[in-house]
Amino acid sequence: MSKPRVVALGNPRFVGDDFLTAFREDFRFSVLEAYTHDEAHALLPRDIAEHGPIDAFVIRMGTPPYEPFDEALFDMMAPRLKIVASASAGYNEFPVGHLAHRGVYFCNTVDGVAEATADMAVFLILAVLRNASAAERCARAGRWRSDPGLIPARDPSGLTLGIVGLGAIGKYIARKVAAFNMRIVYYNRTRLPADEEATYAATYAGSLHGLLATADVVSVSCPLNAHTTGLMGRAEFAAMKDGAFFVNTARGAVVDEAALKEALLSGKVARAAVDVLCNEPDVDPWFLAQDNVIVQPHLGGLTDVAYRRAERECFENIRAYFATGVPHSPVLPLSAEK
Amino acid sequence: MSKPRVVALGNPRFVGDDFLTAFREDFRFSVLEAYTHDEAHALLPRDIAEHGPIDAFVIRMGTPPYEPFDEALFDMMAPRLKIVASASAGYNEFPVGHLAHRGVYFCNTVDGVAEATADMAVFLILAVLRNASAAERCARAGRWRSDPGLIPARDPSGLTLGIVGLGAIGKYIARKVAAFNMRIVYYNRTRLPADEEATYAATYAGSLHGLLATADVVSVSCPLNAHTTGLMGRAEFAAMKDGAFFVNTARGAVVDEAALKEALLSGKVARAAVDVLCNEPDVDPWFLAQDNVIVQPHLGGLTDVAYRRAERECFENIRAYFATGVPHSPVLPLSAEK
Repeated sequence: MSKPRVVALGNPRFVGDDFLTAFREDFRFSVLEAYTHDEAHALLPRDIAEHGPIDAFVIRMGTPPYEPFDEALFDMMAPRLKIVASASAGYNEFPVGHLAHRGVYFCNTVDGVAEATADMAVFLILAVLRNASAAERCARAGRWRSDPGLIPARDPSGLTLGIVGLGAIGKYIARKVAAFNMRIVYYNRTRLPADEEATYAATYAGSLHGLLATADVVSVSCPLNAHTTGLMGRAEFAAMKDGAFFVNTARGAVVDEAALKEALLSGKVARAAVDVLCNEPDVDPWFLAQDNVIVQPHLGGLTDVAYRRAERECFENIRAYFATGVPHSPVLPLSAEK
Repeated sequence: MSKPRVVALGNPRFVGDDFLTAFREDFRFSVLEAYTHDEAHALLPRDIAEHGPIDAFVIRMGTPPYEPFDEALFDMMAPRLKIVASASAGYNEFPVGHLAHRGVYFCNTVDGVAEATADMAVFLILAVLRNASAAERCARAGRWRSDPGLIPARDPSGLTLGIVGLGAIGKYIARKVAAFNMRIVYYNRTRLPADEEATYAATYAGSLHGLLATADVVSVSCPLNAHTTGLMGRAEFAAMKDGAFFVNTARGAVVDEAALKEALLSGKVARAAVDVLCNEPDVDPWFLAQDNVIVQPHLGGLTDVAYRRAERECFENIRAYFATGVPHSPVLPLSAEK
């Protein structure tokens, strides 16, 4: 029985040589050295002509150079193609429905970037309490620490962190901030089981507004969907403690930015720290110019370890499919017989 | 028996009303509303004339407005004064020897700022791995994340942190970075007992150079003294891994700054993050202008919680003295009979 043939679109350089050596024991694996949309369309048919049909296709993080992902690209690999495994968590750029209809599983990654994104949240919590960006600008401007508002900094110890969305990322955040002696309240639409709450020392707030009224720092880590678009609006910022802190590592559109602006101008929110803003990369320049806003340019999940985990998830989805007939994280069930 | 009279130089506003209420059950406590050197010298004799002799004197964080601390200030309180409790960790600005000779205990604080300083170290470790300051400057300049070197960031997970000086601060650092899946090696002149090593999951490096050769991130948290001045010199940076990271929350003079500069220019040290530099606040402007140096203006221990802990330590030293005859943390033993 011949090994299934697996091709990666560009070189997965984070997965690790040891990992690939082990993978090659069970699969015929090669890299399609294509790094743009046009290279992919030009080189893929040649690869198939030379090396034979492809059973599984791996797509790494960093998809913009390949976009748009035309159905035609995947159709070149029909009818043999069985699974496409992407290292990204998002999948709106892929013809997922078309693939499902053709009997091809499309898998995203579900855990690759969660811990790295939580690290970003913890970093931003420490930074926003410490007023660290303003402190660095003060020092770099030659004033050392003489600007008002730097001393004493706020300390996380004993403060309450409100986590909006205690999912994969929120749980990592809860574990990590325990090391800084913060108390955790959380709000999910569905309350977690008691044993999970105990694991994360997290107290359920019966409502979003209940969380906002008790948290010294509010951190958003929910997915963006129809329920969460504009979730943090005027009424929500008004419900926060005076002088509270706001952190967002989810998506910009979870926040009504006009309402956040007002809250920052009035002092209702003392400082905000955001890894995400609406309309990236063409974000509202107002946020970039404020002294009480810390900005990271959506780098939460973009670490070397997150890349490695995400690439490995791709290969593990493929391994699971060929071992069991079903991958770990298909985005859709198959809608047609192959 | 009348309560001992305790006076604080300026209002200790972090210690907390509840704490002071409890303290007042056993002590006659008042605040000398003096906030400069001259106010202190003018108001202290009037306070004694009006309210009687002072048994214990509290000096809060933030001593520069009162400096120099002349012997004359303390001599005004002789012969009744028994203990001076300072909220600072350092004490070179006080006439400690003179006081000991006069039979007056002088106490510094030993744990007040340790955890806050460790938080600063963890913040700097995350920041330096993430290249966070450069990322924020890139975004603020309107380039979002398009500068080279931002993606992917380095991730702490799986990296080895080398802690130079596993004392009170270093131990807090070790506990906190465990939440980020870092391995710990440490170097002290004297190895810790096995149970302490186990508590902090810390592996002893037999030598400083042994630590430097194995650490991905080197963090300095040793006291500054004759043994540690210039501890990190040319030979030490040369002993580090290529492209390693360097963090300093101890004192500037632990580092030979010319050697650090060379290591940053050659790329031997990929990036450094420092809360301390030589000759603060008139530090070498070269460090303030580098893209691969993250600077905080010596804010490690300056948080509200650290201030509260430090002020409480003052009052607890006084309470211990009047309960047992000996305070918790005298800097010197008494050298004369009272």
